[in-house]
Amino acid sequence: MPSTAVLEALAAFVEERDWAQFHSGANLAKSVVIESGELLELFQWTDEAPRDDVAAELADVLSYCYLLAMKLDLDPDKIVLDKLEETRVKYPVEKARGRSEKYDQLPD
Amino acid sequence: MPSTAVLEALAAFVEERDWAQFHSGANLAKSVVIESGELLELFQWTDEAPRDDVAAELADVLSYCYLLAMKLDLDPDKIVLDKLEETRVKYPVEKARGRSEKYDQLPD
Amino acid sequence: MPSTAVLEALAAFVEERDWAQFHSGANLAKSVVIESGELLELFQWTDEAPRDDVAAELADVLSYCYLLAMKLDLDPDKIVLDKLEETRVKYPVEKARGRSEKYDQLPD
Amino acid sequence: MPSTAVLEALAAFVEERDWAQFHSGANLAKSVVIESGELLELFQWTDEAPRDDVAAELADVLSYCYLLAMKLDLDPDKIVLDKLEETRVKYPVEKARGRSEKYDQLPD
Repeated sequence: MPSTAVLEALAAFVEERDWAQFHSGANLAKSVVIESGELLELFQWTDEAPRDDVAAELADVLSYCYLLAMKLDLDPDKIVLDKLEETRVKYPVEKARGRSEKYDQLPD
Repeated sequence: MPSTAVLEALAAFVEERDWAQFHSGANLAKSVVIESGELLELFQWTDEAPRDDVAAELADVLSYCYLLAMKLDLDPDKIVLDKLEETRVKYPVEKARGRSEKYDQLPD
Repeated sequence: MPSTAVLEALAAFVEERDWAQFHSGANLAKSVVIESGELLELFQWTDEAPRDDVAAELADVLSYCYLLAMKLDLDPDKIVLDKLEETRVKYPVEKARGRSEKYDQLPD
Repeated sequence: MPSTAVLEALAAFVEERDWAQFHSGANLAKSVVIESGELLELFQWTDEAPRDDVAAELADVLSYCYLLAMKLDLDPDKIVLDKLEETRVKYPVEKARGRSEKYDQLPD
């Protein structure tokens, strides 16, 4: 999972500013999307975006993801690994190899 | 950072399916937004979303974030901590405490 | 449909700047999301956003929607009315009245 | 503007279902983004998306845009034309022709 230091730093940042009052699930989910849009803006007309800019925007997306995870007492690593297990089943290697279709459109 | 096991599991998942060919920066950034939209859909009309559903959608957002980070050789923990330092400066505790305005609209 | 004047003004704006070269379907779809994220940012922590700001951001979303429609030779009015017919079937008044669930979760 | 018929059809659809109670500004803005994400999903790994699918998703984005405009008593055509005037000033033809940079990064 993100190191405890990261989660603790985020939690302390919010606590010091008394911002938990604004962090409803809906508001955090909105924030994840808003920051994702800023990340995408770096790639609006191009495949190449400045690495430092990507780092800064990606950090914002991750921060709100971690805040939402903490709010719901979800372990970021565990949910990623759990979901990956499900995705493995939906996209078996022999069917999905080298293909970008959605699982329900993959040829048998 | 996310445990090495998580990043390695994601990398192996992609490698086994030969999907790196689809993972341009722009496509991964699009994927982060697409999955963020699915996360937000759980909160479209409500502040309360089923925790298991949030876990599954949040996992998708995180997975694409980590894939983009790996592609650009960015350490997820480091970029979050670096950005947090910048945000601390923009939102000093004494100005931002209990307020949700953007930094350039905070009262002096 | 949007008045011909609006579509013509948008087309002329792009033509004068020789921007059609950047307007692939994917780039326009990215732009719709990016601008939608900026619209949502006005409502990040609140239900009340300044009307003029909403107008400006909503205009950006609409502009890219119209550019994408023109690129694919789609009539904005027609597609909205066509989709509305489909949605009427999915959400019959007697089942959906006063309820916000998705169609597949509405009680019989 | 979208023909009166379109706006009236949308308004009647909502009225019949008693859905105005769910249509806060924030919820409509969320809906615009959620539908935009579904539109983008059609272009996740490709520049070519099926035209009928684009029509259906674009219709959803437009529908929520119009509902938000009606809620705030904004004329869709007018706000697009007003914003276009501002954008003309930010992107003068002689500076922006054939370039995709943001206005503050255009060469003089």
